[in-house]
Amino acid sequence: MTHSADTQVKADLARLLPLVEPRLGARLPQNETVAKAMAYSLEAGGKRVRPVLCMLTAEALGQHPERALSCALALEYIHTYSLIHDDLPAMDNDDLRRGKPTCHVVFGEGQAILAGDGLLTEAFQLLAEDASLSPQTRVEAIAALAEAAGWRGMVGGQSLDLEGEILTQSGQSYDLPHLQRIHRLKTGALLRASLELGGIACEADATQREALRRGGAALGMAFQIQDDILDATSTTEAMGKRVGKDQDHGKITYPRLMGLDGARRALAEVTQQAIEALSPLPHPGSLIAWAHYLAERTA
Amino acid sequence: MTHSADTQVKADLARLLPLVEPRLGARLPQNETVAKAMAYSLEAGGKRVRPVLCMLTAEALGQHPERALSCALALEYIHTYSLIHDDLPAMDNDDLRRGKPTCHVVFGEGQAILAGDGLLTEAFQLLAEDASLSPQTRVEAIAALAEAAGWRGMVGGQSLDLEGEILTQSGQSYDLPHLQRIHRLKTGALLRASLELGGIACEADATQREALRRGGAALGMAFQIQDDILDATSTTEAMGKRVGKDQDHGKITYPRLMGLDGARRALAEVTQQAIEALSPLPHPGSLIAWAHYLAERTA
Repeated sequence: MTHSADTQVKADLARLLPLVEPRLGARLPQNETVAKAMAYSLEAGGKRVRPVLCMLTAEALGQHPERALSCALALEYIHTYSLIHDDLPAMDNDDLRRGKPTCHVVFGEGQAILAGDGLLTEAFQLLAEDASLSPQTRVEAIAALAEAAGWRGMVGGQSLDLEGEILTQSGQSYDLPHLQRIHRLKTGALLRASLELGGIACEADATQREALRRGGAALGMAFQIQDDILDATSTTEAMGKRVGKDQDHGKITYPRLMGLDGARRALAEVTQQAIEALSPLPHPGSLIAWAHYLAERTA
Repeated sequence: MTHSADTQVKADLARLLPLVEPRLGARLPQNETVAKAMAYSLEAGGKRVRPVLCMLTAEALGQHPERALSCALALEYIHTYSLIHDDLPAMDNDDLRRGKPTCHVVFGEGQAILAGDGLLTEAFQLLAEDASLSPQTRVEAIAALAEAAGWRGMVGGQSLDLEGEILTQSGQSYDLPHLQRIHRLKTGALLRASLELGGIACEADATQREALRRGGAALGMAFQIQDDILDATSTTEAMGKRVGKDQDHGKITYPRLMGLDGARRALAEVTQQAIEALSPLPHPGSLIAWAHYLAERTA
């Protein structure tokens, strides 16, 4: 990563994380099991990529990052719920996440399912109740977040991914367009929504929203290709979650379909697409630095 | 049940179900597994109590029932998702629901978790996108539905219920106030929201909303006491789901805490409270008939 991009990412985190972290669990009482389970997973750390991208989008449009704060929190709630459900024994069956025992390991499977449901629901409540945004802006944000998170987006991608595992375990395979569709839905949709919701919160114009949609889609694809690469090359210690599990599960990934070098070329290409789409925004510097960071991150 | 209440309930169902049934799965494509699983559970039948109460509330306020249609559908989506997750092996572990195999029996546990997540998300998207309601009305409906469905309501109640099972299995017990709290949250909150959302959709005034909240809360309690009674006295055939399972799970119920006669007296009392709260509405006839029906239903 270039030195200047690295410096920018560190400065962004130092500025934005203090806005996000104290508010994540602020609405959750510590004397109710399900609320405790929700807070446990919210506060287990993580890179906070989605809320940071959402608030950086507000800055790229010349607005204060707090303008997009409820959108940022809602995105992290949705992301965290998806991790809790994805880690369940019936799904990916993971016992380690963000370097800590997963929610169902600590609270039991039933409470973990409910904690995920609670976070998903709370994301929409939080947006609906944000009196600093107009009702019109709130319904637009809710509709866009639901579109990205539901069966047309993330949930649909996880369903395809689950089917793909069964397919490959039975000795069958699938091709690049199908893999791209899974990536676009499973990880891409919510990352694209991170920029989209920033634009909605700031009441961006149609041209800016289109730039954010295209840039966000490319960033999302870059993120997932790098995830595939890291799963094949990194260590459990560095990632805070089990690696090599794609291969264990017989999953189709970018490195498996086109080799590590091919995957790295594809990553460079979509990163360039993201940068080109986002460059016309009023203050694109940080988003572009993050495009470099997401492509070159090591965890 | 009085003959006139019975006639009224049948007339309400004949008028309202044709508005609800064709729209339940209308947005779900049949070539995607997770959307198929969502539609399967939505279309597996059921009494449609929540959407019907929501639309009857619109009529009680002198409005057309279609005014509350998106709220009615969203309520049934939330109810259906909660059944899918509640039936999972890690929760109640039920293989029969509404007389059919449960979602995870047909589609597998992973897809069933995702189908529930998809329905929960879709409920909010459907409300956010209903252009026939003002943005202000939509955010109010979304906030009220999320409050009733999330950790402050249904999810919180299911979490307490799950903890209660573990408590009683270890030989401990809990008292009537705790049981009432579980009922109020687990079943009561969404039934109360059915009337509340009808009032929001119709932009009811503050007095009417308070009547709907009080009447809805009492109806919700009545519904759950009758559920407890039916679980102890009915048959699997009549209910379309396993009965006697409360006792099998060692669950605390109204009949167990105060005997069948005591439970029936409590049921009559809360039903009377519901009727008194709802009587001042402009056209309360159908809602009152349903209060009788819910207390006297046999399935």
